[in-house]
Amino acid sequence: MAKLRLSHLRRFIPLLDWGRSYGWNAATNDLVAAVIVTIMLIPQSLAYALLAGLPPQMGIYASIAPIILYAIFGTSRALAVGPVAVVSLMTAAAVGKIAEPGSADYMMAALTLALLSGGLLLLLGLFRLGFLANFLSHPVIAGFISATGIIIAASQIKHILGIDASGHNLWELVLSIAGKLPETNPFTLVIGVAAVGFLFWARRGLKPLLMRIGLKPRPADLIAKAGPVAAVALSTLAVWGLSLAERGVQVVGSVPQGLPPLTMPSFSLSLWGDLAAAAILISVIGFVESVSVAQTLAARRRQRIDPDQELIGLGAANIGAAFSGGYPVTGGFARSVVNFDAGAETPAAGAYTAVGLAIAAMFLTPLIFFLPKAVLGATIVVAVLSLVDFTIIKKAWGYSKADFAAVTATVIITLGLGVELGVTAGVLISILVHLYRTSRPHMAVVGRVPGTEHFRNILRHKVITEPRVLTLRVDESLYFANARYLEDIVSDLVSRQPELEHFILMCPAVNAIDMSALESLEAVNHRLQDMGVSFHLSEIKGPVMDRLERTDFLTHLTGRVFLSQHLAAKALGSNGIADRNGSD
Amino acid sequence: MAKLRLSHLRRFIPLLDWGRSYGWNAATNDLVAAVIVTIMLIPQSLAYALLAGLPPQMGIYASIAPIILYAIFGTSRALAVGPVAVVSLMTAAAVGKIAEPGSADYMMAALTLALLSGGLLLLLGLFRLGFLANFLSHPVIAGFISATGIIIAASQIKHILGIDASGHNLWELVLSIAGKLPETNPFTLVIGVAAVGFLFWARRGLKPLLMRIGLKPRPADLIAKAGPVAAVALSTLAVWGLSLAERGVQVVGSVPQGLPPLTMPSFSLSLWGDLAAAAILISVIGFVESVSVAQTLAARRRQRIDPDQELIGLGAANIGAAFSGGYPVTGGFARSVVNFDAGAETPAAGAYTAVGLAIAAMFLTPLIFFLPKAVLGATIVVAVLSLVDFTIIKKAWGYSKADFAAVTATVIITLGLGVELGVTAGVLISILVHLYRTSRPHMAVVGRVPGTEHFRNILRHKVITEPRVLTLRVDESLYFANARYLEDIVSDLVSRQPELEHFILMCPAVNAIDMSALESLEAVNHRLQDMGVSFHLSEIKGPVMDRLERTDFLTHLTGRVFLSQHLAAKALGSNGIADRNGSD
Repeated sequence: MAKLRLSHLRRFIPLLDWGRSYGWNAATNDLVAAVIVTIMLIPQSLAYALLAGLPPQMGIYASIAPIILYAIFGTSRALAVGPVAVVSLMTAAAVGKIAEPGSADYMMAALTLALLSGGLLLLLGLFRLGFLANFLSHPVIAGFISATGIIIAASQIKHILGIDASGHNLWELVLSIAGKLPETNPFTLVIGVAAVGFLFWARRGLKPLLMRIGLKPRPADLIAKAGPVAAVALSTLAVWGLSLAERGVQVVGSVPQGLPPLTMPSFSLSLWGDLAAAAILISVIGFVESVSVAQTLAARRRQRIDPDQELIGLGAANIGAAFSGGYPVTGGFARSVVNFDAGAETPAAGAYTAVGLAIAAMFLTPLIFFLPKAVLGATIVVAVLSLVDFTIIKKAWGYSKADFAAVTATVIITLGLGVELGVTAGVLISILVHLYRTSRPHMAVVGRVPGTEHFRNILRHKVITEPRVLTLRVDESLYFANARYLEDIVSDLVSRQPELEHFILMCPAVNAIDMSALESLEAVNHRLQDMGVSFHLSEIKGPVMDRLERTDFLTHLTGRVFLSQHLAAKALGSNGIADRNGSD
Repeated sequence: MAKLRLSHLRRFIPLLDWGRSYGWNAATNDLVAAVIVTIMLIPQSLAYALLAGLPPQMGIYASIAPIILYAIFGTSRALAVGPVAVVSLMTAAAVGKIAEPGSADYMMAALTLALLSGGLLLLLGLFRLGFLANFLSHPVIAGFISATGIIIAASQIKHILGIDASGHNLWELVLSIAGKLPETNPFTLVIGVAAVGFLFWARRGLKPLLMRIGLKPRPADLIAKAGPVAAVALSTLAVWGLSLAERGVQVVGSVPQGLPPLTMPSFSLSLWGDLAAAAILISVIGFVESVSVAQTLAARRRQRIDPDQELIGLGAANIGAAFSGGYPVTGGFARSVVNFDAGAETPAAGAYTAVGLAIAAMFLTPLIFFLPKAVLGATIVVAVLSLVDFTIIKKAWGYSKADFAAVTATVIITLGLGVELGVTAGVLISILVHLYRTSRPHMAVVGRVPGTEHFRNILRHKVITEPRVLTLRVDESLYFANARYLEDIVSDLVSRQPELEHFILMCPAVNAIDMSALESLEAVNHRLQDMGVSFHLSEIKGPVMDRLERTDFLTHLTGRVFLSQHLAAKALGSNGIADRNGSD
């Protein structure tokens, strides 16, 4: 009994699993990775909080408790959980509808959003409903993330110009920025442009430079990833030394020192109702992104992750964020890759990162008083532009027009109408496109290839047919979206062939027949009977046949069920004779 | 050019087709059918208008212009268009949210609803989008219709009791009726119960009786169908003769005499916005029901209907209703069957019915002043209870738990929360159920059946496998809803088999690979490469292979594509040797 409970606990708390074999070697590797990730996360956390419209310290708080909770409940060994760009923007979009940025209500709504998405993720995980996230098509997500990246970059231009602008979609942002352009602060602009330039260069040029001066590739890579920290330090010093804050350069200002506070999200049902839709979208997008990162990293070490347990890990992380001054979090791509590359072996690396960030929150916040917001904006712009990749559209155009339509619509709606409508439209369109694609399945009237037992499309091959027997092959599972189409096609074919006596439906690729399709088959059987034509089936798959045998369809069937099309043609046709006569 | 235009016209106006060969014989048959249908339609039209909360004459008006327009544009030879029970209730539900029953606004909203659904049907038809209606699962529709039948019957109890009650769902109706029970009018109750009893008996007992007194089956059947007319006549006479209206029996009262008026629906965009969702639901439900009736009747004479042209015919009929004092209409089951059984040969029968109804509207309305509403209610109760058939639930339980869940949810939501939520939930649930069903497709690890070239599930058959090679067979098309599941399964299988060198995905039943699935295959390829395992494909279908060849997936593939699983196993494995050694 005790043993059963422990294994049960272990399923839900992977820490109990890897914790038992945790040694000094792994601990050292984890510590090194944690130091590197901590340095990278400080500016990033501040910046994403700014993007979400929240005070900068909430970005750091959102990385502390969530990281520790994910380390306990998550299954990925390398995933680093915290604020990420897309979720920060979605938080701003959702919370901005309810309260003014900067107000206490706004912060409360952000905490509550974290609680709701955390609760939702946890419930999905406990009920093992992770598959629901699979109902998002990859190209739609890729298009959504790219479009969101553009909106995020556009939303940060105001910080780089030192103006006040806002908007929920690209159109509003561009108009708003264009209107305020004359108010640009030249000092801010110089700092912002310099920071963007430096950060882009640090991404591409710093690593080769460091290697040229003798560093090995891996450390060079990791130091280059700390570029944002250098930008933060240098620009803060410049603003302080040159007293640029007095010249209108906006700075972060005073950030409270101390550990994350204990916060209480709202339990107001009306606020929950207002945030519910956003919480669903944020949970799903966050989960999908996180799982994809975790799976990619796990594969590199032949490990595996459990998507349902990931839901529990991310759910716990978000609930933790709600009670410790954070906002919705998920597994970030950039930080997880850095963590992995820096050698993190277990989730303990995440716990050490949390300790590092807690130390930063306690002692380092006075140092960033003069940090210009333009540099945080530049950090975001450079980070999110790497998310933007519209090659998916070109790829979809070449591969599948249906996917092309879905991804293009998602991108246009996200850019033009905002993130929430964009992702909702993307989900609906990809489902509709799938239904459309399977609603008109490939069907072919087939005939026998002379001298063989093979049956092929009469439009593509020279085959033998006869007016008394017609065989239609269906190349798709039959279900509600294509059941009536089948009825239409059969009516059409049969009404054109007045001598017809036998109609055979050949089903070698029919993996399932749902109840709608079963009713359509019954209708076809009935209607063919009214026309004096008998209805036969051939090459039904085993599991499909098992199901049909549980109904009375087969007893009403006017014709027979044949194991193979060859047997059907032999039993019903005079093909043998036609063949011998050389008829076509 | 002139010829081209005519054939073009003929596509959109089937009348030009059958009209050319219309002779005396067909005309006589059509006339006889029209007389019978007219007699049947008068009480039915009055009753359905009552159900929709509209003045009784609107039910008759809704049968005149729409029937003629459908005769011109529709493709079914026997379909009779007009008010039907389910659409009348849906009209009441939609319009009742906007205006008080009996008010001018209420009538205006009903006309506008007809215009909107007509316009929508017409657009769908012109753009040949009839397939959209196929996205409704049959069992969900069947459940919805049955549940609606119960709500309709419950909504008529107030007329039979002579009380005032209302409600949008079964719960509200039952509570409302229970509260008013003491106000029951005994005279109304007697008339109502007698009418229900008579009508039920007329359905079952009248035909045998008529045959026993010498009538042939067909005329006996048709006269029995006129039972409601006898109920109407007898009860009207009774109320008039016994002055029951003075005893509180509610009667139809004065109905304007004359042809349908020319009416103008509203073009207010805000009203359109309020009615849009209801118009979509009514159009779709009406179209699906109508097409199913039309197809069944067409098949009996080896004719066919064109669903997209049906949309145009029904669209024209509804627009006609909007401008001639009607409300949303569709092809009715009962009236179409009567029309067909009475011998109607062409849509001209419908036009003659319209003339009959026009005569009734001009001259007969004074005769129904004393017609008790209880009898109209009884007509509806008896008509709709024949729609109620919950065997679909039992059937779904036996055949498919997924369909069972969808139909049960639809029935419960329709009964408990009303028709609009019911049908919306039904659509969403059937789509989710389909996605769920295909999201975890059947997959099997396969091995070779000793001594053959066949490969079978290792769990079901005694087959040969080896630790270096793993073959997974997928029995479903790969698309976004199951792409990540495939990734999970592959990760899981591969992480359990450390000696693995070759992974083969066997795809004999994969009819399509969408872009999400393509990306998953790329991810699998990449992850397997990281693990040192090569990724092979076997038995890819021609059209799927054509698509894959348009991408660079095959150039990145670490393994090969094999035409057959046998070739794959021969090239990669040492199965031949294992086989000879008798290994299992």
